[in-house]
Amino acid sequence: MQGLHLIADLYDCRGPAALMLDAARLEVYCVDACRRHGLTVVGQLFHLFRDEHGQGAGVTGTVVLAESHLAIHTWPEIGAVTLDVYVCNFSCDNSQRAEALFAEVTQAFVPAKIERNAVRRGQLAAS
Amino acid sequence: MQGLHLIADLYDCRGPAALMLDAARLEVYCVDACRRHGLTVVGQLFHLFRDEHGQGAGVTGTVVLAESHLAIHTWPEIGAVTLDVYVCNFSCDNSQRAEALFAEVTQAFVPAKIERNAVRRGQLAAS
Repeated sequence: MQGLHLIADLYDCRGPAALMLDAARLEVYCVDACRRHGLTVVGQLFHLFRDEHGQGAGVTGTVVLAESHLAIHTWPEIGAVTLDVYVCNFSCDNSQRAEALFAEVTQAFVPAKIERNAVRRGQLAAS
Repeated sequence: MQGLHLIADLYDCRGPAALMLDAARLEVYCVDACRRHGLTVVGQLFHLFRDEHGQGAGVTGTVVLAESHLAIHTWPEIGAVTLDVYVCNFSCDNSQRAEALFAEVTQAFVPAKIERNAVRRGQLAAS
């Protein structure tokens, strides 16, 4: 269970609108990104929210990994995204994979501002 | 996107074994708990890992909420669980709901030790 949980809130995103508004497009992108960075996808679930006029109003999604999960939520009306990448080190140290995946997904949205946190998980299991 | 993200690593859990090993049972429990605490479930995905002998070796799962997500991973071989509850305050302040849900799910596993973090998300959107 020991691992690295990376957390970011992205602001003033100038990336492709489809990544903020198209659940299928964001799902394919996130699943592919996890695989490209050497993680094992066991499932994914993405959902498009609609406003009162039936227009897309943001996407929430998660990729469940053998190594833990990626979770993402988009707020297109304010150009913001929240991103979580939690990767445990069960079979090997996946921290570099987590950092590389996190950096790639973050950059895909072209944010002007990033608020980042990192939490080391499962530290008491090491003692 | 502003909200409260509660993070815990639970150790030496003495709760029901089914919550650690039965993906369907854990899924029903988590979905019901989210609903009981007034959150809106838009989907869920739970997966059972098996060891080389085909025996259950832990569950990873997520409940996707209109208010963000719950994510949980169990490590029955070491009696540990990692739990995330991230609830945003889009339509109202859901912090108390997040805390109540988090406390209930944590207690269901009867952990001897808890390592807890809380991250306020989306703070720059407030400025």
